[in-house]
Amino acid sequence: MNTPEASRRDSGARPTIKAVAAAAGVSTAAVSQAFNAKGRISEATRRRILDAAAELGWSPSATATALRSARTRTLALVVRRPTDVLGADPHFTELITGLEGELAPRGYGLLLHLVADVAEESTLYERLAAEGRVDGAVLTDARADDPRPPLLRGLGLPAVLLGAPHPDAPVPTVGLGNQGAGIHEAVDHLVELGHRHIAYVSGPGELLHTGLRRAVFEETLLLKGLAPAAVLSTDFSEAAAVAATEELLGMAQRPTAVMYANDSMAVCGIGAAQRAGLRVPDDLSVVGYDNLPIGHWLHPRLTTVDQQVQRVGAAAARALLAQCGEKVPPVALDERPRLVVRESTGPAR
Amino acid sequence: MNTPEASRRDSGARPTIKAVAAAAGVSTAAVSQAFNAKGRISEATRRRILDAAAELGWSPSATATALRSARTRTLALVVRRPTDVLGADPHFTELITGLEGELAPRGYGLLLHLVADVAEESTLYERLAAEGRVDGAVLTDARADDPRPPLLRGLGLPAVLLGAPHPDAPVPTVGLGNQGAGIHEAVDHLVELGHRHIAYVSGPGELLHTGLRRAVFEETLLLKGLAPAAVLSTDFSEAAAVAATEELLGMAQRPTAVMYANDSMAVCGIGAAQRAGLRVPDDLSVVGYDNLPIGHWLHPRLTTVDQQVQRVGAAAARALLAQCGEKVPPVALDERPRLVVRESTGPAR
Repeated sequence: MNTPEASRRDSGARPTIKAVAAAAGVSTAAVSQAFNAKGRISEATRRRILDAAAELGWSPSATATALRSARTRTLALVVRRPTDVLGADPHFTELITGLEGELAPRGYGLLLHLVADVAEESTLYERLAAEGRVDGAVLTDARADDPRPPLLRGLGLPAVLLGAPHPDAPVPTVGLGNQGAGIHEAVDHLVELGHRHIAYVSGPGELLHTGLRRAVFEETLLLKGLAPAAVLSTDFSEAAAVAATEELLGMAQRPTAVMYANDSMAVCGIGAAQRAGLRVPDDLSVVGYDNLPIGHWLHPRLTTVDQQVQRVGAAAARALLAQCGEKVPPVALDERPRLVVRESTGPAR
Repeated sequence: MNTPEASRRDSGARPTIKAVAAAAGVSTAAVSQAFNAKGRISEATRRRILDAAAELGWSPSATATALRSARTRTLALVVRRPTDVLGADPHFTELITGLEGELAPRGYGLLLHLVADVAEESTLYERLAAEGRVDGAVLTDARADDPRPPLLRGLGLPAVLLGAPHPDAPVPTVGLGNQGAGIHEAVDHLVELGHRHIAYVSGPGELLHTGLRRAVFEETLLLKGLAPAAVLSTDFSEAAAVAATEELLGMAQRPTAVMYANDSMAVCGIGAAQRAGLRVPDDLSVVGYDNLPIGHWLHPRLTTVDQQVQRVGAAAARALLAQCGEKVPPVALDERPRLVVRESTGPAR
């Protein structure tokens, strides 16, 4: 004959605190204490009770209900970058600023995790979902065959993916459309200024947006009947930007214009060019990417591509908050990144 | 006839760990391991278990999981700044980089909250403690009569306070000693270069470190028999830094040197001076504060005070991790901030 507990388990009926107490060989009061972290039960007993409860699928109903409906008021932002590049690339500061602008007034926090690779990132989402640590996640750095959207869908964790709008994506995408448009405009701008030797200083090749922008750079030049003066890859670090610039300035046929994959590298490039005795833009035109605030204040002011990082962050936060049940209107985004012409680009000599 | 799993699902009864184990063809212990990211199960098995759990709608009780592992592996960083200044001041990016350098390799995350004032910050700690969301907190921007250390002590939440070492503080302090030393050195450096009209562009007056540095600036000048050319307060924003610089350059007796409360403002100040037709350092010497990476790459390279923001972040993370029971050796910090003389300071004309 079955014990009452076993029959309950087998029939799939809801387990009871009595069943947990019986399975652990303790009183029901001790079970309560184990879950409330109160009382004088030993760690070994607490563990035995929690294991028995897990085995039976029991949890204190009030707490369980509260936990099920309760919000953590926390969104995850997992960044796949070495920690030193996080500091070097103000892009993330801009993104976080955009997110926080929406989260802070609503009392939400941002859980920031740095991970080394996609596998580590996936394991982390599994843990955050299992432990109920966040209400949703903002995914950055979209890749081809990205495993994260289906994973998060499977985990039941709301998510948005930063990147070009993609109607078939397993999770909503938030970003400007036509992501190559800014690069396209920048190349047009330089060619109109008479530049024929234009170089590109890229980010790491494996990132989707990096590869896309580099491809648009090369295609746009090709449409004009031109070839790149050079295309150099970097890890986004300042030292790599300076090294790439020095390499370009040392070429037999020196480029008359350089486009950088972000503003931070462009600022370093301007410094390196000035240090080598070149004037910007008289001797060398420089184009950045991101439209960070600093570019507006430097002398010369930086010509760059505005991809509205803060605004995309705000839109991502709102899209995710809406998925989490908050009543927030969506943020309208421009249909594409735009070139902002300032002072660091001029006629080719 | 229905399988037990199907009948459970159909009857709407609560799914059990046993059902998940059966569906995935593993032991219940393996299911626990899959959700706790522990044990030696393969990635494929883990995924099969998570899929089965998602299919059945089962997840470990958050309370049970939390109590079993006890750690959230999350530390809080609450920043009392308007969101737009967060983006403007790379100081926080540096601090976060320093913290993440220690947290990321250990699988810890950083919960970032922006708040408007101390009252909001205190309420937040109370909620985070009550909901068990973090293992500890890093406190920034120490104030006179700071209510946070006693509050966190009362909440039983481990904390470190960023600032000058203070043996009697209710929570451990992490920071360089002799915090005025960098300002003192900078004033000495400028006076030795022949400057007699030195201005100071400060941060918001209510912050402890801002007030301290401004006082040291004035006292050091006084020791040399000099008075400040001007002392202007800002909210740390780039626009305010430019406005302050323009105000100084418009003075009847124009300062020959300006010290800024952070590098970000100093970079804006250099841009504003160059835009006004002045050469740095020939016509105007500029000193920053923080030693951010960008200062090393600009032309001219920025003379600044190194207060080792990243290293202080790393030390704070380790001190907090140690309080949370992690075995980490402490980070040794220099005894004081130091002046880094580069190219933006030169002899007074």
